[in-house]
Amino acid sequence: MTEASFTDDHRARVLLMMMTEGGNERVWHAVDQRGASTLVDELLRGTISDSSLQRLTKRLPHASSDLDEMIADQMIRAKALGARLIIPGDRQWPTQLDDLAARAPLGVWVLGNANLRLLALRSIAIVGARAATSYGQLLARTTAGTLADRGWLVVSGGAFGIDVAAHRGALGAGGTTACVLAGGVDVAYPRSHENLFSDVARDGLLLSEAALGAAAQRQRFLTRNRIIAALARATIVVEAALRSGSRTTAREAGELLRLVMAFPGPVTSVASAGTHELIKDGQAVLVTDADDVVHLLGEPPVLEVPDEMPVIATARSADYDHEHTEALLGVLPVRGGIGLDELASRMGADAAQVGSMLGVLELTGRVERNNAGWRRARP
Amino acid sequence: MTEASFTDDHRARVLLMMMTEGGNERVWHAVDQRGASTLVDELLRGTISDSSLQRLTKRLPHASSDLDEMIADQMIRAKALGARLIIPGDRQWPTQLDDLAARAPLGVWVLGNANLRLLALRSIAIVGARAATSYGQLLARTTAGTLADRGWLVVSGGAFGIDVAAHRGALGAGGTTACVLAGGVDVAYPRSHENLFSDVARDGLLLSEAALGAAAQRQRFLTRNRIIAALARATIVVEAALRSGSRTTAREAGELLRLVMAFPGPVTSVASAGTHELIKDGQAVLVTDADDVVHLLGEPPVLEVPDEMPVIATARSADYDHEHTEALLGVLPVRGGIGLDELASRMGADAAQVGSMLGVLELTGRVERNNAGWRRARP
Repeated sequence: MTEASFTDDHRARVLLMMMTEGGNERVWHAVDQRGASTLVDELLRGTISDSSLQRLTKRLPHASSDLDEMIADQMIRAKALGARLIIPGDRQWPTQLDDLAARAPLGVWVLGNANLRLLALRSIAIVGARAATSYGQLLARTTAGTLADRGWLVVSGGAFGIDVAAHRGALGAGGTTACVLAGGVDVAYPRSHENLFSDVARDGLLLSEAALGAAAQRQRFLTRNRIIAALARATIVVEAALRSGSRTTAREAGELLRLVMAFPGPVTSVASAGTHELIKDGQAVLVTDADDVVHLLGEPPVLEVPDEMPVIATARSADYDHEHTEALLGVLPVRGGIGLDELASRMGADAAQVGSMLGVLELTGRVERNNAGWRRARP
Repeated sequence: MTEASFTDDHRARVLLMMMTEGGNERVWHAVDQRGASTLVDELLRGTISDSSLQRLTKRLPHASSDLDEMIADQMIRAKALGARLIIPGDRQWPTQLDDLAARAPLGVWVLGNANLRLLALRSIAIVGARAATSYGQLLARTTAGTLADRGWLVVSGGAFGIDVAAHRGALGAGGTTACVLAGGVDVAYPRSHENLFSDVARDGLLLSEAALGAAAQRQRFLTRNRIIAALARATIVVEAALRSGSRTTAREAGELLRLVMAFPGPVTSVASAGTHELIKDGQAVLVTDADDVVHLLGEPPVLEVPDEMPVIATARSADYDHEHTEALLGVLPVRGGIGLDELASRMGADAAQVGSMLGVLELTGRVERNNAGWRRARP
């Protein structure tokens, strides 16, 4: 997150994400109507009439200087972690989350270098029971591995059982995975998955709508599920008990018109009772392997990056280069890095356009980003 | 089978069932157009122009006296077994077989005392792999047991694996089962199921369109499957390989607009690959237990017996008695038996009407039939 892209809107949303719980429709509407900055101002001044919004003010500090401290705390944490905030309108904002309408997150904290928006466009969620059987874990691992190998981002929730098997399967195949956490991206929960979260952040993305440092509270797991459902183009349930969070995710995904798939299992296994119910109720399509998933979803979809530059998500070569890509690569250094504005200036081009080209090149691993800015990736 | 009900049509069909294979549409159309007796006459005289029908004549004897011998052979076998021939128009003809149109059997040989037509109206086929796993056999046995206990007739094919588990499950629950054989009802195939077939004939029904003494040839298993599919109101596939006879039965049942259900299993089990395909293709609905089946099918359906006398199949008491049922039961002896015509005469009623009342009472176990005719069943 460069300071240049950190606006008042970002600052206000950092605060609102600390003060409110995810999926609060009144907050979203207030932000939609007034803007996040104005809302924070009005809350601070006590000029809000809406009672449920007023209740938020109890969690507000009393003075602007305290606000600044709250923001500073988050920014210090973010800097230490290397986390960045992505909000609606940002180039990496995954617009699929907008399908949640008033339940959309105000923003997401992200840890990891990949482009969330582009990866989300070719993402599949694999979710399931914490109390998974070895059968379910095997399915999650192999399915995630195959899908990741074919270029899909595997999205899951970092929990015990199916989730960890899915993340590990994707990473093991050299693919990319995204973990949507219920608490802050700096809060390892469950703690024994600390290594998993490090690996995901290194090779993929850790994200959460919770403020940095926020605990993984029970209620946040349920609201978190809607983000998994909305972020991914499709959801696969591997094992689920009759009443389970995975079925919530599946229902959310179905309501968002995402394709929902489920693996069958022995009818004698309680861990498959939930997936069987999903199939019976017509909420999920039965699949038996990753080939079925690919058959149903087709190839990873064509991406649409900002500035209407069509790019194919499967790009692994120069096939989908922009006409100025070669020129851009020529300007980029191999060591150190150059900032976006400097690059745009050297290219004689608009910063937004250069930014979108960089996003695609980053996705295909041909450029990378560090503290100094952008540089060519070593092959 | 009383001699009184054995017509020229029956005689001709006995012959045609010896001379032709089941499901021959040309034969069916010829019978439909000319009548079975005329067709046999014309075949014998060589006045048939249709080439495929002419080919049948090679299997015809040369003289009417030989025909009589062929029929006599079947009748002697039938008498020894206690088998009866049921043909379209007979009171026990299961009209569901007419859904097969030109592929309907010309008749079925039946061993067992129950009323085929009435039982077929509340029947469910349970079919599946010969190479079934213990998981599949457990499902078949318990599902058949529960359904039989609730008053459904369990139909299957008497084969190894799922079939035998279904028959045994129904019998073990004190219920009724029907076994549709590929060869003659007097040909125990597989031979090791000889005891099963005896038990089915004693407590349920053995039936086949093949002539008595006909071998269980390979082709006859495939044509037999259409009878299972048509006879039953719905079909459950428990386990099936990707290419299997059970999937043929399921496809037939689907084409006949019967509800087809399938049990899932581990995706790692080849024995469940066929049922998963059926579910994926929308050819079968996923079920996980007998409750699901009952939920989908509802209660055993209202029966329509001849003479438009509405009777509920679940009748286990006098709830659904005809207004003259008590009078009929009063006329029936407890020992020995009375023929239908004699009963009708004593009741001052039409024989067909008395016959249909007897059919219902037989179904509910309140009357039984022996060589002497009808009598009241002992409680």
